[in-house]
Amino acid sequence: MAKKAANAITPTRNEDYPEWFQQVIKAADLSENSAVRGCMVIKPWGFGIWENMQNNLDKMFKETGHTNAYFPLFIPLSYLEKEAEHVDGFAKECAVVTHHRLEDDGKGGLVPAGELDEPLVVRPTSEMIIGASYSKWVQSYRDLPILINQWANVVRWEMRTRQFLRTTEFLWQEGHTVHATSEEAVEETLQMLNVYADFAKNYMAMPVIKGEKAAHERFPGAVNTYTIEAMMQDRKALQAGTSHFLGQNFAKAMNISFQDENSEEKLAWTTSWGVSTRLIGGLIMTHSDDDGLIMPPRLATQHIVILPIYRKEEDKVKVLEYCHNLKKVLSELQYHGENVRVLLDDRDIRGGEKTWNYIKKGVPIRIEVGPRDIDSDSVFMGRRDQSPKEKSSVPRLEFINSAASILDQIQKNLYDRALKLQTENTKEFDDLEELKDYFTPQNKDKPEIHGGFAKVHCHDSPELEDILKSMKCTHRCIPLDGPEEAGTCIFTGKPSKKRAIIAKSY
Amino acid sequence: MAKKAANAITPTRNEDYPEWFQQVIKAADLSENSAVRGCMVIKPWGFGIWENMQNNLDKMFKETGHTNAYFPLFIPLSYLEKEAEHVDGFAKECAVVTHHRLEDDGKGGLVPAGELDEPLVVRPTSEMIIGASYSKWVQSYRDLPILINQWANVVRWEMRTRQFLRTTEFLWQEGHTVHATSEEAVEETLQMLNVYADFAKNYMAMPVIKGEKAAHERFPGAVNTYTIEAMMQDRKALQAGTSHFLGQNFAKAMNISFQDENSEEKLAWTTSWGVSTRLIGGLIMTHSDDDGLIMPPRLATQHIVILPIYRKEEDKVKVLEYCHNLKKVLSELQYHGENVRVLLDDRDIRGGEKTWNYIKKGVPIRIEVGPRDIDSDSVFMGRRDQSPKEKSSVPRLEFINSAASILDQIQKNLYDRALKLQTENTKEFDDLEELKDYFTPQNKDKPEIHGGFAKVHCHDSPELEDILKSMKCTHRCIPLDGPEEAGTCIFTGKPSKKRAIIAKSY
Repeated sequence: MAKKAANAITPTRNEDYPEWFQQVIKAADLSENSAVRGCMVIKPWGFGIWENMQNNLDKMFKETGHTNAYFPLFIPLSYLEKEAEHVDGFAKECAVVTHHRLEDDGKGGLVPAGELDEPLVVRPTSEMIIGASYSKWVQSYRDLPILINQWANVVRWEMRTRQFLRTTEFLWQEGHTVHATSEEAVEETLQMLNVYADFAKNYMAMPVIKGEKAAHERFPGAVNTYTIEAMMQDRKALQAGTSHFLGQNFAKAMNISFQDENSEEKLAWTTSWGVSTRLIGGLIMTHSDDDGLIMPPRLATQHIVILPIYRKEEDKVKVLEYCHNLKKVLSELQYHGENVRVLLDDRDIRGGEKTWNYIKKGVPIRIEVGPRDIDSDSVFMGRRDQSPKEKSSVPRLEFINSAASILDQIQKNLYDRALKLQTENTKEFDDLEELKDYFTPQNKDKPEIHGGFAKVHCHDSPELEDILKSMKCTHRCIPLDGPEEAGTCIFTGKPSKKRAIIAKSY
Repeated sequence: MAKKAANAITPTRNEDYPEWFQQVIKAADLSENSAVRGCMVIKPWGFGIWENMQNNLDKMFKETGHTNAYFPLFIPLSYLEKEAEHVDGFAKECAVVTHHRLEDDGKGGLVPAGELDEPLVVRPTSEMIIGASYSKWVQSYRDLPILINQWANVVRWEMRTRQFLRTTEFLWQEGHTVHATSEEAVEETLQMLNVYADFAKNYMAMPVIKGEKAAHERFPGAVNTYTIEAMMQDRKALQAGTSHFLGQNFAKAMNISFQDENSEEKLAWTTSWGVSTRLIGGLIMTHSDDDGLIMPPRLATQHIVILPIYRKEEDKVKVLEYCHNLKKVLSELQYHGENVRVLLDDRDIRGGEKTWNYIKKGVPIRIEVGPRDIDSDSVFMGRRDQSPKEKSSVPRLEFINSAASILDQIQKNLYDRALKLQTENTKEFDDLEELKDYFTPQNKDKPEIHGGFAKVHCHDSPELEDILKSMKCTHRCIPLDGPEEAGTCIFTGKPSKKRAIIAKSY
């Protein structure tokens, strides 16, 4: 029990990983469930992470030639029907608007009125509504490529929801591009996959595997779906972003065609790609520990928190003044082209409680300042990537000069730690029984704990899906970077050219 | 006819102002109507203006202590019913979600299925859904104030829509704050009104009048609504932003209460404030001319466009190289803390057509570069605030050194021009017949042309609304900055302390 009391989060990751996840969110004040089924409220501390994700991804999109635009929230039902696989994929989870006003029900309440001639679906994704615009915009090869991104909310009526990982409404970006040739569209699809992988690595400190999805895991209507897959601390896989080569399927459905240089009418080739607030779920589950959230510095809502500590009222003025000056100096420092984000919490509450508050909230660097620190012109520093007990006194000027590089060290440590977990828990299997063992929980009390990522030769066929389902696994991807290697499918014995990754997943 | 042909936009402002507005939008490629009734597509050129508005407003909100968060798109019907005036104000224009999936209709089509127990309203504004969260978050006086903003899409089912000015779905920000006292809430309301007025003046180059709305023009459920009102070039008023003091009405409806320092339970005081993509409509109508859009530099999608001009293929390499170098240097310049945004259009189309393209798109500075300019190491510059004919040759280095200050001159010119229009067309009236004349079109062929803003003493009563309606006018506001001045209502003769502004309006 002594050990348990030392942790800020109950239960710990080992005790109950899914519940630990919820408790970290609560302790860090990131978000909460709302009164609307499956919809969450993203609170300021959580939204700060999303804003940093948005700003940095947006820069990367613009550097690769994309611009932003905005398309309608609603999709006429008849549009959705135009691509058969697509509508099959989303029909079961669509919020449908059927009326456009409210009317007195005669009993003091209101009822929907003004029924629409054609119901409108709240976008679950925007291929069809954006395609309708593109079919007008694209006339000639001179109009291509079209490289547009949209930041938006989307709605998918999920039966089981979990904050950040799967919610009825979520925030995302969706890129939608049109190209003259298949080659260009494939290149775009892979370029954006690489942008996502770079973002995951360099900003989220989250190592990912880039790969191609199996046929039954593709986006509805896509020719190829590429994914970045990350390993969470419970060794399950999280699909963190996807990039789709849509071939000519949507161009055909929405009539996106152009006259080429020889005045011949050609169907265009399209792509789409997206990441969502689900990334925040991935960020939490990659780094956080039994004391709460750990934010990688590149995306942290605040980089440094300053906590004034004084017991006697006579020390208050002196301590606060020192802290305000420190905040001012630190806020002018640059960290990767942005100003360092510094929070000074001068609320009148106990020092210990305050410190734990920011440990749980995952601020990379905590600075405590009391009268004795001021006497020696130093600060008392704690790093979130280290144990809460490992604090050290640092001369003020030395800290100021090294703050940015300490943030970089923390960022690197978090990445290295996550990569180590992924590497240690990724194994090749050629024997089916050993593979099954790998996915069997080693302890009945802890059903979450199992092997990790398995690299196996397997054959992409409908029967595969059933086999994997029985093992509570899914086909994550065929890694793009992995070596070609002749082998035979572990399930069917059929020939295979490359190992796939299978794993339990979110 | 000669004069007409010299303008890029048909009709001109004088000929048909509303149609001119639509044609400017089209010529500048800002947006278009979508297949969904009343919903528009904001195209990259238009969305660039919105992004610049967002970035700058967001900074201003953060400098005044606000943080961003995100709340659900859907509002349960029962929540909306809790504030009587509020629901009355929005019931007639609500998009209502009644089903959560689609089902085969047996004829190859789809029909809504999975009826919801309680219909969900797509937010027309978020007081009720945000209030539901606040009622949980606010327990003690220590939790106050709450200062949160949300960037979001909202839906109001408008019968008559017009791009940017009134659309079924639009983008906006909505600030929602909670305070312990009435004084603090009023202070917040006015602070945000000032932020909006500063933004309109310094970024949009749009002079506005800050004022208080008449009772019948208030936000549904508000105690006081404050507004910024701008004059468009047809002398109509545009409400460009509003800030509402909600008193305790919403705190009561949603039960937002707290224990004060003496452990007494108190109802809180709330505010809300918002601006929307309507601002883009205001920007267009304030500055643009018969040649198309004019963007104020502080919000321009691109500040400078470089147009390489060459007739002989042998000049192409030299001209393009010069232009690319120029772009590089200009892009590194700073303009109000941001990099100068430079577009180089090297498409292979006629020089004249290209130039007119960017006149219509409203880029503040156009630079043409041909072989002869290179020989003299100079550029040929056109400014969008001047006539298209007024181009001048400027040595390259001189232009680079003065580019930022030329942008500032353009910004200032646009503001001065707009202020002059507003000043010249704002008049005081004490005689009812003269007032009526002022609002009577002087020319039956041009029903849009009338006086402008009228400053009159008038009494805020229900009958006023009918009188104004008969004159096709509305009560815009009682200016905050105007002098107190004893007078009598121009309509009723009742005593009045301050002049109000009445005007035709959007």
